Amino acid sequence: VHTPTAADLGERALIERITARLTMPSWVVVGPGDDAAVIAPERGALDVLTTDAQVEGVHFDRRFVPPDAIGYRALAVNLSDLAAMGAAPRAALLSLALPETFEVEAIDRLLDGFLAVAGSYGVAVVGGNITTSPGPLVVDVTAVGSVRRRRVLTRAGARPGDAVYVTGSLGDAAIGLRLLQDPATRHTARGPAVERYLRPEPRLRAGMLLGRNRAATSCMDLSDGLADAVRQIAQASGVGVVLDAAQLPVSSAAREWHLEKGGDPVDTAMRGGDDYELVFTGRPSHRGRLNGVRHQLGDLPITRIGTVTREPGLHVDDHGNTRSLPEGYEHFR
Amino acid sequence: VHTPTAADLGERALIERITARLTMPSWVVVGPGDDAAVIAPERGALDVLTTDAQVEGVHFDRRFVPPDAIGYRALAVNLSDLAAMGAAPRAALLSLALPETFEVEAIDRLLDGFLAVAGSYGVAVVGGNITTSPGPLVVDVTAVGSVRRRRVLTRAGARPGDAVYVTGSLGDAAIGLRLLQDPATRHTARGPAVERYLRPEPRLRAGMLLGRNRAATSCMDLSDGLADAVRQIAQASGVGVVLDAAQLPVSSAAREWHLEKGGDPVDTAMRGGDDYELVFTGRPSHRGRLNGVRHQLGDLPITRIGTVTREPGLHVDDHGNTRSLPEGYEHFR
Repeated sequence: VHTPTAADLGERALIERITARLTMPSWVVVGPGDDAAVIAPERGALDVLTTDAQVEGVHFDRRFVPPDAIGYRALAVNLSDLAAMGAAPRAALLSLALPETFEVEAIDRLLDGFLAVAGSYGVAVVGGNITTSPGPLVVDVTAVGSVRRRRVLTRAGARPGDAVYVTGSLGDAAIGLRLLQDPATRHTARGPAVERYLRPEPRLRAGMLLGRNRAATSCMDLSDGLADAVRQIAQASGVGVVLDAAQLPVSSAAREWHLEKGGDPVDTAMRGGDDYELVFTGRPSHRGRLNGVRHQLGDLPITRIGTVTREPGLHVDDHGNTRSLPEGYEHFR
Repeated sequence: VHTPTAADLGERALIERITARLTMPSWVVVGPGDDAAVIAPERGALDVLTTDAQVEGVHFDRRFVPPDAIGYRALAVNLSDLAAMGAAPRAALLSLALPETFEVEAIDRLLDGFLAVAGSYGVAVVGGNITTSPGPLVVDVTAVGSVRRRRVLTRAGARPGDAVYVTGSLGDAAIGLRLLQDPATRHTARGPAVERYLRPEPRLRAGMLLGRNRAATSCMDLSDGLADAVRQIAQASGVGVVLDAAQLPVSSAAREWHLEKGGDPVDTAMRGGDDYELVFTGRPSHRGRLNGVRHQLGDLPITRIGTVTREPGLHVDDHGNTRSLPEGYEHFR
C-alpha cells in the first residue's frame, strides 16, 4: 500500500488542504490565497514581529517528535517570543519546506498541532508558503502581535538592585528530551517532562500582565536556557547578575531524574533549553505590582532567583560558594 | 589556508556581524537583538504580510547563482508580493538556515545583495533568525508593508470585459536561467536576461500607482509565470481569460535565443517563471486612470495582452488559432 506523500498531492492541493482548515477573524482583510495577507493593525498599539525556524535534525528528531508536536512547537516558540515582549498574539505565517516523501498524513498532524496552539491563543493563520526541500523538513514561522507603547518589555531595562524572577519551573524540557533521546525509555516515557518538551506552553498571559502592570524592567524567554537568558539581559542592560542556586524552581521531574542518575539538577535547571518560561527583572519597590500579576495569573508560580548588580559579572551563589554562570546553548557550537 | 565558515564564527558573532550593518528608521521602536521587533504601524493604513523561502537546490543553484544574488532575490521576491497588493514596503525579517561549512565571506555577500534591495526600497531589516542546516541553505524572508484600505489589490476583482495587462517584458528570466544552467555559456553569459534572473526588480512603484489611482480590478505578480498568474486571477475572480499571443511583450533576449535555438518564444513568455512583472486587469472605462499610472511610471511599459470573459475557460488566441492556456510551474511536480 502506497501512503500518499507531499509529492503525490502537489503544491496547490496541499495549500488548499491547509487553508480549508483556517478561519479568519474580522480584522483579516485578505487571508491566505493572495500574494500577501492584509490585516488591520490593533488600534493604538504597536506591531510586534518575530520569526523562528524549526529544522529537522537541529531542533527536532522525527524518530521521537511526532508531527503534531513539530507543528505545536513551531508556533509555540514564536508566541513565547511575543510573550517576552509583553505582546498579545494576533497572526502567524507558516512557511514549510517539505521533503517530497513527507506523508500527507504527517502534514495533517503537523497542522493539528499548529492549529491547536493557534486556537488556544486566538492566533489567525493568515498566510505562508510551501516549497520542496531536498534535505530536512523546515518549519519556519513568523508571528505578529500587538502591544501598547508603554507596555513593551525588552531585555535592556534591568537596573542594579532589581530582583530577578522566573515563571514556572526549570528543567522539565531538558529531562523530557533526555528521556526521548534514550532508546531504552523513548517508547515508554510519559508525563510532564516529556509533555513540556513536546508541547511547551508560551507564557503569554504572564508576559501581557507584566507589561500591563508595569511590573518588569526587562524580560526574555528561556528558549536557550536560563543561563543564556540571564547573560543576554545583563549584556543588553549593562549590568551584572547573581543567581541564588538554592532558590531555582527546579522541576520535580528534574530532581527525580538526577536522584536516580546522579549529576546536578541545578546545572540542568540553568543550562537546559526549551523550557520557554520567562525570566524578568523588577524593582524591589514594585513588589505590589508583581503581587497583582501573581494574583491575576493564578497557578503559575513566579520565583525570585537572584539580584541585578552594578558590577558586570555573572555569578551563581550556591550555598555560600560563588561560581561563574555557565554558558548557554549556541548554534554552530 | 582555511576559509572561515559559519561554524567558526558561531551564532552570536554571526548575528552581531549582520546587525552591525543595519540602520533603523525612527518608527522602529525595538530593532534586532531582542525577542521580537516592535514597529509603529503606518497611520491610517493596513498591515500587509508575506513570506517566501528560497531553498538551495530548489530555487537556486549555488554553482551559478552568486551569494549576493541569493540575498537579492530572497528579498526582491517578497517585495514583489507586496507590489502585487499595492502595498508600500516597510520592514523585513531574515531567517537563515546555514550549512556549517557556509563561508563567512559568502554570508557577507548574501547580505550585500539583501541590503542592496532593502536600501533601494527603504525597507528596514528589523529582525530574523539564524540556525544551522544539516542540508541545503535556506533563506526565508518575511516582508511587511502597508496599504490604505481602498487601495488594496487582490486577485479576486477581475470582471468580464476587463482588459488584461502586464508590466515590462516577458521571458528574460527564463532565458537567463537557461544560459546559466548550460555549462557551455555559464561563465560567459552576461546581459539583461541573466541580470534579470539573478536580480529581479520588484514592481513596487507600479503596484502602488495602480492601487493609488484605482486603475486595477485585480493584480498578481509573475513568480511562477504568466500562465500561472492568469489562471490564479481567473480562478479567484470566477471568470475566464483570452490572451492574445501576438500582443505579449516578449523580451528581445527571448526572441533572439529562440531565433538561434528554435522553439517558441511565446511559450517561454507564458510559461517561464521568475520575471516578477505584474499582471493585472482593468476596466476599459478606466483607461484614463491607467494612462495616469503610465505617465507617473515613466519607462516601464504596460501592455494590454488579453480580455476577461464571462465563460470560465482560459485560452490563447495565436493569430486566429485558439488553444488552451498552458500549465504553469508547480512545486512537487
